[in-house]
Amino acid sequence: MTTSSPGGSPEHVIDLNSDLGEGFGVWRLGDDDALLDIVTSANVACGFHAGDPATMRRVCERAVARGVRIGAQVSYRDLAGFGRRRIDADPDDLRDDVTYQIGALEAFARAAGDRVRYVKPHGALYNTIVTDPEQAAAVLAAVRRYDPTMPVLGLPGSVWLRLADEAGLPAVAEGFADRAYTAAGGLVPRAVPGAVVHDVDTVVERSVQMAVERRVTTVDGTDLAVHARSVCVHGDTPGAVEMARRVRAGLLAAGVQLVPFA
Amino acid sequence: MTTSSPGGSPEHVIDLNSDLGEGFGVWRLGDDDALLDIVTSANVACGFHAGDPATMRRVCERAVARGVRIGAQVSYRDLAGFGRRRIDADPDDLRDDVTYQIGALEAFARAAGDRVRYVKPHGALYNTIVTDPEQAAAVLAAVRRYDPTMPVLGLPGSVWLRLADEAGLPAVAEGFADRAYTAAGGLVPRAVPGAVVHDVDTVVERSVQMAVERRVTTVDGTDLAVHARSVCVHGDTPGAVEMARRVRAGLLAAGVQLVPFA
Amino acid sequence: MTTSSPGGSPEHVIDLNSDLGEGFGVWRLGDDDALLDIVTSANVACGFHAGDPATMRRVCERAVARGVRIGAQVSYRDLAGFGRRRIDADPDDLRDDVTYQIGALEAFARAAGDRVRYVKPHGALYNTIVTDPEQAAAVLAAVRRYDPTMPVLGLPGSVWLRLADEAGLPAVAEGFADRAYTAAGGLVPRAVPGAVVHDVDTVVERSVQMAVERRVTTVDGTDLAVHARSVCVHGDTPGAVEMARRVRAGLLAAGVQLVPFA
Amino acid sequence: MTTSSPGGSPEHVIDLNSDLGEGFGVWRLGDDDALLDIVTSANVACGFHAGDPATMRRVCERAVARGVRIGAQVSYRDLAGFGRRRIDADPDDLRDDVTYQIGALEAFARAAGDRVRYVKPHGALYNTIVTDPEQAAAVLAAVRRYDPTMPVLGLPGSVWLRLADEAGLPAVAEGFADRAYTAAGGLVPRAVPGAVVHDVDTVVERSVQMAVERRVTTVDGTDLAVHARSVCVHGDTPGAVEMARRVRAGLLAAGVQLVPFA
Repeated sequence: MTTSSPGGSPEHVIDLNSDLGEGFGVWRLGDDDALLDIVTSANVACGFHAGDPATMRRVCERAVARGVRIGAQVSYRDLAGFGRRRIDADPDDLRDDVTYQIGALEAFARAAGDRVRYVKPHGALYNTIVTDPEQAAAVLAAVRRYDPTMPVLGLPGSVWLRLADEAGLPAVAEGFADRAYTAAGGLVPRAVPGAVVHDVDTVVERSVQMAVERRVTTVDGTDLAVHARSVCVHGDTPGAVEMARRVRAGLLAAGVQLVPFA
Repeated sequence: MTTSSPGGSPEHVIDLNSDLGEGFGVWRLGDDDALLDIVTSANVACGFHAGDPATMRRVCERAVARGVRIGAQVSYRDLAGFGRRRIDADPDDLRDDVTYQIGALEAFARAAGDRVRYVKPHGALYNTIVTDPEQAAAVLAAVRRYDPTMPVLGLPGSVWLRLADEAGLPAVAEGFADRAYTAAGGLVPRAVPGAVVHDVDTVVERSVQMAVERRVTTVDGTDLAVHARSVCVHGDTPGAVEMARRVRAGLLAAGVQLVPFA
Repeated sequence: MTTSSPGGSPEHVIDLNSDLGEGFGVWRLGDDDALLDIVTSANVACGFHAGDPATMRRVCERAVARGVRIGAQVSYRDLAGFGRRRIDADPDDLRDDVTYQIGALEAFARAAGDRVRYVKPHGALYNTIVTDPEQAAAVLAAVRRYDPTMPVLGLPGSVWLRLADEAGLPAVAEGFADRAYTAAGGLVPRAVPGAVVHDVDTVVERSVQMAVERRVTTVDGTDLAVHARSVCVHGDTPGAVEMARRVRAGLLAAGVQLVPFA
Repeated sequence: MTTSSPGGSPEHVIDLNSDLGEGFGVWRLGDDDALLDIVTSANVACGFHAGDPATMRRVCERAVARGVRIGAQVSYRDLAGFGRRRIDADPDDLRDDVTYQIGALEAFARAAGDRVRYVKPHGALYNTIVTDPEQAAAVLAAVRRYDPTMPVLGLPGSVWLRLADEAGLPAVAEGFADRAYTAAGGLVPRAVPGAVVHDVDTVVERSVQMAVERRVTTVDGTDLAVHARSVCVHGDTPGAVEMARRVRAGLLAAGVQLVPFA
């Protein structure tokens, strides 16, 4: 949902992205409709970790109706594990799996009047390509063959974004307002206490900090420059949706424009 | 493989179509490479009854290299049953399943330099929509939304082709040179003795009859007008490939041009 | 959960069954833990329409800890359709699919200290074998080969129970306190207004009527004899769980003993 | 196929094992019937990397008819990758996946008149548990809970067999007559030239060497003690079946008895 805030100075602009369409068949996960009123970019599951065709169509139609951009949330083929388990896939197979998923989503995006605007890998694939050049290159090969101008979304400093940039693809960094950062710019691992920020006010404040000041306070209390063009929010619990709503409201109240990056 | 036969009069033109890419993972079915040197249109499996992404890519690349047209061989979601079992799918779900499959194949067709040129349902879905208007309409809704000029391939006299025609989609009838026809124009059911013609010379002769004379001899010995723009050949056994090769050679020898319908 | 009610006369005995373990991977459906405190028999999904191995193990362990009997809720292979779509499966394949599912569940039942005590088909398979002798016989062939003394649960008057009885398998009829019955003893189809009883007090009253008087009032207001040894309750919504809890309490209050049939 | 060779001294006894039932639906892999006349132990695929229920039933029936022992060839859940890709599965999930597969196969083994006699992991899981104690322990937990006397088959020196032994499970080592061994007792990696022995006579000779002399010549030309109670043969190509047949004949000719280890 693209929104212009009258008081915002033009340079304070950010995108909000979230995972959508992560049900399968009768099963639902998260509140897609609520999120579509909050975010500007929808990472739509493409059937390999979640996302049946009917759900993909429905999310695409509603996203387009709200001006929310459609991104392909590509994954390992792993419904049983929800794409959260690293698979030592052959790079060529992984490339083709990604192509397949982008193409399937594109059919629904186009039927809804738009197209796939970006690619953001999911779960274990997202994490793997932070450091694994072979799998990162495989996913990028799929994206580049599909559309050499397609933006990709990911973690700042990742191999994924670096290789994308080298390949000439627009590499878009995202920030996590609810995750603690190390002074080195990485995310504090989830297993470490304090890795996830649960206080809503703090998360809102950090979102604004990222969007307006382009920085975030690290676990050490130091300032870290964060050049995120998108902030990732979650919607898989009622609390998560409420937090996402508060992040949106907080950004708008701070004069930040919510604009899709793609 | 488009081939112009110098001696052919321009009106004697036919397409040869066959199912391709029907393996999955390590499993193979049929000889894709051999068929790609024989046919002019490849019905490529899209992952629901067969066809993994790597196979889809490979078949698309080789089809484009040979001038063979790529068609989406869409199916019920049924790997275990190879799409040969009717599923009482909800029409909206079936429509979306078809959209998904066309989109996935399109990504590989475009990467190979062409696009999906037509749609031919597979197996139980093919048979169901010969008579079932609800499922036929569901598949057509997917095709039409995808591309209102996309040809569809199917059985002459089927509900599928009739509804396609009414919907403004190019409805292309195919003939089966190795199947016995009833005087009413239908195929003799497989369970009936004599339903399948096994003699290669007879099959070649019937192919030529269909292409040149636009008719076929029925089980009753009468003449049946057959307006097939494509003849379907098989490739899932060594004998089938050899028969397909003979059909191709026989058509060329009779001065028939082999030209993709799409 | 087997419960003896001191005031109940010995002949007033009924079983309560419900579908459990119908999630898959990260996805949940229904409140398994709540139902395990209510029912005496758990129809555990076996992986073909729902039910991953970890869920199967967990449900079996908790069922055994509460004295709840484990039944195999076998299905067509159809995760995407949740087993709600009829599949024209080959009878031999269907038989083997059922064997596979029973065996898989048995491993978890045995590890938990019990075994599979009965078989109840799910969804479209349940409905199909009410009238389809071929598919009913296929499922029964699997059950009988597995254990010729295994009870099967189903709809009174169904082909399924009749053939089971003829095959010497204990055929157990279940009642639906929340469904309207015709004078002929069938269920009023869901599409007909009034087919589903939503008022909790009425459902409780009808459960007691079934358990104590062995009859139910039909849509015509007449009395219908119902020889159900089990009453089916649902748990896929908070309202359904509350209704099931009320049915249990109502039966106990009326002096009915809740005893597994198997 | 258990065979006693009259001239063999009682101490010269070996088992021959091979992977069977590795088709899925219409797809076939290898010649199950040919192998069942060669081996004494059948590693039957259980549906996660290959192996549909109908194939499992058929292989079990034929194995029992020939006196061939049935083993559960358990795998990661990965039909698309044929179980050849390591998956970072949660150990509890992996344990439950293995339990599920053993149980499913047991149903067919029992219906055929025998039972699952041993467990041999497949593909990437086999390789992973050579060195990964967490996944090895997960698979062993499943086996031990299922039957604390169940033998497990694997690579000599592997973590898998060591942990099995510590857990009190019969740990059975297998040899590979067609693979080169290092002086340290490991297999030469497939990527290294000479890793696979293709000459049939040499493979036969090495099989006999393993069975009779309990040793094998390494790539360095030294002698390595090999205490394999089973030799693994393959059947996925016509050449492989012929080699397996020659190995069997060679062992019998050398007076070795072919006896299932389980």
